[in-house]
Amino acid sequence: MVNNQSTPLDRTFAALADPTRRALLARLDAEEAVTVSELARPFPVSLPAIMKHLDVLSDAGLIVRSKSGRTVTCQLKAEPMEQAMNWLAHYQRYWTQQLDRLAAFLEEEKWPADPASPSSATSTRRPRKSTKPGRSPKK
Amino acid sequence: MVNNQSTPLDRTFAALADPTRRALLARLDAEEAVTVSELARPFPVSLPAIMKHLDVLSDAGLIVRSKSGRTVTCQLKAEPMEQAMNWLAHYQRYWTQQLDRLAAFLEEEKWPADPASPSSATSTRRPRKSTKPGRSPKK
Repeated sequence: MVNNQSTPLDRTFAALADPTRRALLARLDAEEAVTVSELARPFPVSLPAIMKHLDVLSDAGLIVRSKSGRTVTCQLKAEPMEQAMNWLAHYQRYWTQQLDRLAAFLEEEKWPADPASPSSATSTRRPRKSTKPGRSPKK
Repeated sequence: MVNNQSTPLDRTFAALADPTRRALLARLDAEEAVTVSELARPFPVSLPAIMKHLDVLSDAGLIVRSKSGRTVTCQLKAEPMEQAMNWLAHYQRYWTQQLDRLAAFLEEEKWPADPASPSSATSTRRPRKSTKPGRSPKK
């Protein structure tokens, strides 16, 4: 799916589309530098499979590998995620608008337009359903 | 890359990893409902190729398609992007910290520790390089 013509944004999203790769990034978020064999240990897949995942992450610029003798160590480079987050932020109003509508609906349920009962604002239930006018909420 | 075991987050990131699919979403962001043939028109690829991209977007829950006679219309459903954005937000400190360090560096360059020149705070250039003490910034 990712080819030579792919953009940095294509590579970032493609790299994040796999749970093993996201788990590898989470591990590198928790620890600053981890060897490849340490990174591979918790996963029920082969070391070559993990190496391929690390290649994808490295191609996307999300990790850097450094070699010291026979040991390869990986470090997280989260910066390419910024462009991905900026891309998504453009669509954020879709779900925040939904939350706003839900909040407005709940508010309407809580405080129905009823100018005769200004004190109802201290109750968390719809006051017009109350059958015991003598009861008042605890303070 | 996306299989039957894929999670919603896998499908969202995979769907966004292609520039044509992102362009299709951008078009559906600009217009509320667009027919498949209208959506396909600007792209230099075949209609079946666009249909495949729309399948990927639909599987990720990012669009809904509705049929009226022989016309299929698509609508954006951006809500699955929220989980993707929340995932990325966890890493946001990496690039904001970088910006903070840059700001601190620039601030340091702008106002070098120099208690003898408190008035230097009105200049936007390094005051010790000034050769014309009589000039003052416009107000």
